[in-house]
Amino acid sequence: MEKRIDIVQRFLKSRAVRFIAMLFILLSITSVVFSSFKDFQQYGWLFQSFIHLASLVFLIEYMLRIYSAPALHPDLPAYRSRLKYIFSFYGLVDLVAVIPFVMTYFYWDTEIVHIIILPYVFVVFKLIRYSTAFQLILKVMKSVRSELLTAFTACLIIICFSAILVYFVEKGAQPEVFKNIGDSMWWAVITFTTVGYGDIYPVTPIGRILCAFISFVGIAMLAIPTGIISSAFIASMKDRLNKKD
Amino acid sequence: MEKRIDIVQRFLKSRAVRFIAMLFILLSITSVVFSSFKDFQQYGWLFQSFIHLASLVFLIEYMLRIYSAPALHPDLPAYRSRLKYIFSFYGLVDLVAVIPFVMTYFYWDTEIVHIIILPYVFVVFKLIRYSTAFQLILKVMKSVRSELLTAFTACLIIICFSAILVYFVEKGAQPEVFKNIGDSMWWAVITFTTVGYGDIYPVTPIGRILCAFISFVGIAMLAIPTGIISSAFIASMKDRLNKKD
Amino acid sequence: MEKRIDIVQRFLKSRAVRFIAMLFILLSITSVVFSSFKDFQQYGWLFQSFIHLASLVFLIEYMLRIYSAPALHPDLPAYRSRLKYIFSFYGLVDLVAVIPFVMTYFYWDTEIVHIIILPYVFVVFKLIRYSTAFQLILKVMKSVRSELLTAFTACLIIICFSAILVYFVEKGAQPEVFKNIGDSMWWAVITFTTVGYGDIYPVTPIGRILCAFISFVGIAMLAIPTGIISSAFIASMKDRLNKKD
Amino acid sequence: MEKRIDIVQRFLKSRAVRFIAMLFILLSITSVVFSSFKDFQQYGWLFQSFIHLASLVFLIEYMLRIYSAPALHPDLPAYRSRLKYIFSFYGLVDLVAVIPFVMTYFYWDTEIVHIIILPYVFVVFKLIRYSTAFQLILKVMKSVRSELLTAFTACLIIICFSAILVYFVEKGAQPEVFKNIGDSMWWAVITFTTVGYGDIYPVTPIGRILCAFISFVGIAMLAIPTGIISSAFIASMKDRLNKKD
Repeated sequence: MEKRIDIVQRFLKSRAVRFIAMLFILLSITSVVFSSFKDFQQYGWLFQSFIHLASLVFLIEYMLRIYSAPALHPDLPAYRSRLKYIFSFYGLVDLVAVIPFVMTYFYWDTEIVHIIILPYVFVVFKLIRYSTAFQLILKVMKSVRSELLTAFTACLIIICFSAILVYFVEKGAQPEVFKNIGDSMWWAVITFTTVGYGDIYPVTPIGRILCAFISFVGIAMLAIPTGIISSAFIASMKDRLNKKD
Repeated sequence: MEKRIDIVQRFLKSRAVRFIAMLFILLSITSVVFSSFKDFQQYGWLFQSFIHLASLVFLIEYMLRIYSAPALHPDLPAYRSRLKYIFSFYGLVDLVAVIPFVMTYFYWDTEIVHIIILPYVFVVFKLIRYSTAFQLILKVMKSVRSELLTAFTACLIIICFSAILVYFVEKGAQPEVFKNIGDSMWWAVITFTTVGYGDIYPVTPIGRILCAFISFVGIAMLAIPTGIISSAFIASMKDRLNKKD
Repeated sequence: MEKRIDIVQRFLKSRAVRFIAMLFILLSITSVVFSSFKDFQQYGWLFQSFIHLASLVFLIEYMLRIYSAPALHPDLPAYRSRLKYIFSFYGLVDLVAVIPFVMTYFYWDTEIVHIIILPYVFVVFKLIRYSTAFQLILKVMKSVRSELLTAFTACLIIICFSAILVYFVEKGAQPEVFKNIGDSMWWAVITFTTVGYGDIYPVTPIGRILCAFISFVGIAMLAIPTGIISSAFIASMKDRLNKKD
Repeated sequence: MEKRIDIVQRFLKSRAVRFIAMLFILLSITSVVFSSFKDFQQYGWLFQSFIHLASLVFLIEYMLRIYSAPALHPDLPAYRSRLKYIFSFYGLVDLVAVIPFVMTYFYWDTEIVHIIILPYVFVVFKLIRYSTAFQLILKVMKSVRSELLTAFTACLIIICFSAILVYFVEKGAQPEVFKNIGDSMWWAVITFTTVGYGDIYPVTPIGRILCAFISFVGIAMLAIPTGIISSAFIASMKDRLNKKD
């Protein structure tokens, strides 16, 4: 009994499973993407089949993972290590990726497909397990978590302050654009990150001076996470190179 | 007498006060934000109460700080150390955060609330005292003050030059957009920081070439504060890590 | 025989050929650019002549390169080294730059010129061979290929995830703007890179919060390639300086 | 004789002259800026006076500089060192700053003032001599001139390539927006620098994919000058600190 669990675990960690999982994740995402195009609506049944197939594969994977979970924690009783997996981050991601299978098995309608399909968004999360790139970046970000939190807290304070101030300054001139501080915050974030859509911007001289100030501060502040992440990433790259030598 | 002052000072620096102050600052800011939404206007009395409560807490804090100020400067006479606190940066911030309490206690009207509420913007400044993140960043920025000033002065010169030049180039083609050099400066800042709202941009070939040139120079120039701040921040992070060891 | 091939190869690598090739590449690109302007349409014959002349030069260059290819691989039989050149990256670029010569020799019409002229776009690729700047940057990018791939894969996953999620959130409010996940992905890329044209952006509160989140993540993620490339470039610059000493 | 020249040169390099020159440069720029506002048109005579006064000061400065030029090159004959100054970069800047004085002395008209005033733009250049910030940055940029040139050449090649390609792709769908490759290049620069005004952007699927590709490449490429400049600036800052010790 014990041996079979270990074999399953080894199988789940094998290159073949990794490859198949990646394939079905990409197939599933591609199907969701294309099923949203009106031009491809006549192939709805095809995308449906692909999504079903992928879900089925994910269901089998999920069951195998539950079944073989005790192999990961040999010192725990079997049911506890299974519960541990089910309520872990990856366990929940795997579960969410399976739900639509059950749902779409009973109901499939081109009208309501978009609501049902929503959980499929979380299939993207399955990529986290299988993408080494993503895992490396997550690890790097985790190592500078507190510094990033510091920088983003300071950003948030400045955004808050600017949003409230500019709201009171611009409210009179553009009551339809700066309707409330929510709109003002949207403006502050879009300016701070230098995206600048142009749907909302100050027109009064004081508002413009404040906005110019925020843009400059934004650039200065965003230099901090930029510096932190890039230096952490470069350090982790050097570590990997040193290990290879 | 002396002892009681010290106890109050220790109390003001305790984790409990920090937590309570942060709570009321956030409550106050949240109330201001939500009171600006039309959908929440019927809950105006609730936001008013929250703001009042927060102000009351800030008033008590302000009085305790004035009362216990002599504990910070044992060698000064009591009245001088109190004046010193009142006219310090934090003292003024604390005062501004209290003013609306007195004001709104007598007048509260959903029409004029937005004018009265304005001082609440400065409640955000109270965060500076209690947010270690913000203090760290302020300290880092202070340590590279002269370099940042250098970089921003150079930026200002380039913005000024571009604004005047582009104004004379574009004035003929877009008299309604480039109305004066103020508009032109607004354009220069928004281009220089790569925000690019799209409300004002050159259309003549010469104006566009100048704009392309400014965008590139802007990127090159903004690399300087980016480099300064990120390297200063990384250095300060390393210092903190070394101290921990 | 062998000797003449070597002379031709040395000639092709000489400064004179480099200069002439650069001249005709720039002449060719300039002609294509100006022939697109309506104001210069009456000079079409001039641009045509320039393009023909440049093509002729490229044809001669191409033939000389085929002829002298054996000099590059003295150990291979002549026909194999010639085939090797023809099917190499640079060989194909050289071929593409010649095709329009043959085409435009027979047909030249201001109407269809734009379709025929298209291969001329690839004349820009010829610059790669002759621009040391471009080659240095390509070399630097190659040396950090795997790290860049890692960073861009992670970017792609986040863009995919955001695009799908925001599509389902915004579809109801803006069915004409967020028509399908293709539009949504266009939005995600333009936001992620902080370009922000403003042709497509979320309007619902949830969409805006997601967008703010993506902007911040975008900045954090883009710090990674920025850090990788700039550090690799600085290192390669130091190497060059050390070699000079 | 010799002695008086030296005194004048020392005087021109003194803090007092620096301060006065900066004052009149800023006064002159401010006057030009405000004279462009319609609301301040009735104070035109005031701005005119300020500009005249500043010009007069610049004229005196220019004459003193010509007069005392021999003090800078004691080994040259007096007339040659004066010519040397007149035709130097700073000499020409000083001359341009004086021209409008002569011009506006004879003609002053609120209609034609904007044309006459144009040379005043170059008063900004006078700041270069007196702003140490600007001189430091110019020095830093000069030290990495060749690397910056390399990076910008590569940027130009990519912009050229994208502009030509996207022009042929988008011309069919938006003939009024992508009128010629000039417009297309404007789009490429604005996208590459992530400014993104939103006045011109691709709408076809292929155009959008190309644009997404350019945005990413743009970010990667712009990391190079960013890295070069920021590292050069930090190095020069460290040098200055070491010299102080």
